Amino acid sequence: MGRIAYVNGRYVPHGMAQVHIEDRGFQFADSVYEVIAVQGGHLIDGDEHLDRLERSLRELTITSPMSHRSLKLVIRELLRQNRITYGSIYMQVSRGQADRDFPFPEGLKPTLVMTAKRLKPFDYKLLYNGVKVVSIADIRWKRCDIKTVSLLAGAMGKTFAKKQGAFEAWQIDAQGFVTEGTASNAWIVNSDGTLITRALGADILGGITRKAILKLAHKEGLKYVERAFTLEEAKAAQEAFTSSSTMFIRPVVQIDDSKIGTGEPGEFCLKVIKLYGDYMEQQT
Amino acid sequence: MGRIAYVNGRYVPHGMAQVHIEDRGFQFADSVYEVIAVQGGHLIDGDEHLDRLERSLRELTITSPMSHRSLKLVIRELLRQNRITYGSIYMQVSRGQADRDFPFPEGLKPTLVMTAKRLKPFDYKLLYNGVKVVSIADIRWKRCDIKTVSLLAGAMGKTFAKKQGAFEAWQIDAQGFVTEGTASNAWIVNSDGTLITRALGADILGGITRKAILKLAHKEGLKYVERAFTLEEAKAAQEAFTSSSTMFIRPVVQIDDSKIGTGEPGEFCLKVIKLYGDYMEQQT
Repeated sequence: MGRIAYVNGRYVPHGMAQVHIEDRGFQFADSVYEVIAVQGGHLIDGDEHLDRLERSLRELTITSPMSHRSLKLVIRELLRQNRITYGSIYMQVSRGQADRDFPFPEGLKPTLVMTAKRLKPFDYKLLYNGVKVVSIADIRWKRCDIKTVSLLAGAMGKTFAKKQGAFEAWQIDAQGFVTEGTASNAWIVNSDGTLITRALGADILGGITRKAILKLAHKEGLKYVERAFTLEEAKAAQEAFTSSSTMFIRPVVQIDDSKIGTGEPGEFCLKVIKLYGDYMEQQT
Repeated sequence: MGRIAYVNGRYVPHGMAQVHIEDRGFQFADSVYEVIAVQGGHLIDGDEHLDRLERSLRELTITSPMSHRSLKLVIRELLRQNRITYGSIYMQVSRGQADRDFPFPEGLKPTLVMTAKRLKPFDYKLLYNGVKVVSIADIRWKRCDIKTVSLLAGAMGKTFAKKQGAFEAWQIDAQGFVTEGTASNAWIVNSDGTLITRALGADILGGITRKAILKLAHKEGLKYVERAFTLEEAKAAQEAFTSSSTMFIRPVVQIDDSKIGTGEPGEFCLKVIKLYGDYMEQQT
């Protein structure tokens, strides 16, 4: 059986899953999305993701396509039809279809599409491998707190990273501070053993994994602070890592040409990976 | 006969014109577009638009879907099938369809869609009506010189303008300078009778109508300069107008709560409208 996707109330073969060319998601990037990890058939922080989706929709005054309860039913059914126990759910909501015009009409029926993807189960060992990141200028718009599909800058940045043999690109604002990765939040640990990540604001996405890590750090009594850090501070850090819902937590052992700490994943990061792995296990 | 659209080699009823949900135009705003005015069956500055499309594609390393010659054949056929003599052509090229991933794979087959819309013929008189614009913060990304579908900021801005009873929103950068409208270039005429519009750069789109106006001003020996101007300078200007390929040239008689000049369309603007109207007529 081939892959099945969900489009506006119907489960359809992936190859036939389409939206109209005048969908505002296609013509105006007038659309938001979420990606949720699935472990052992369970959604990781599913409610958090649906809450964030709700916030994104509200910020753009896009109508919510259905209740969280209904969204979860669609997710379950899509996982079932695709026989996925470990993987991810991608869901996208656009403002809907309308004759092309910059101003959006009121009362459009939102477009909802969903796909499910099979991935390998979370493996602590795999995540212990350090990765390289490269720095790039942050050229994105000024509402990165909304999870929209205005992702061209990120797509270009990550393509650049890949060509450099890097796992991710960290974006640097006009003042020289790291905002976040193209699809992950950025973290460092300084020589005091303090975990540092940029505070929430319009210039970064409030990552669900970011939130979970802060919660776990608090619970464990680890030192942490939410503040901006420069690229130079990151390069001089003891440890660094990058986090996202589907890549989980990856130790960063090199930024551009600078080795981070010993050049191997550090203890703080490995501890966070362990805590996060356990946190996910509790949800399954 | 209903509206016909073009999608990847086929002419299809508008209602059935679709792209795949994993088209990168839908998931990543990884897509560029052009809108060309059609007057008396002729494309206005058609070659200029196709050249700009080519540049947008090149900047994003998206493969060109076909030659200019072939694009023009598709345009002609679409106009014919829709029986349009006065209107506009919308064409959009995305990087193509691929399993969702930030980095884009090489060698994707680009998606090409086109629609044609019927509009009223260019009417000098209609354009003599002054319009109001409102100012908004420019929150867009830093590559506005590429005509991508990353248009959410513009869509929000123009929706805001419409709610304020305004025709357009002019965007203001962090230094207080006007960049451009959400879908038009911004112009003022100062007390010396000098026409002023922002110089080309990454923060504005190089409008085709903007280019034509500068060419006409040069030919007519009108005083003009390409430089940034502040919102305050605009409010204190003798005249102002906003230009685009499908709205042509609209006199701006009010910015926010400030009346511009006499509060009526000024002579310079009316002259430009006349010159531009004649310029278009020469192409038909």
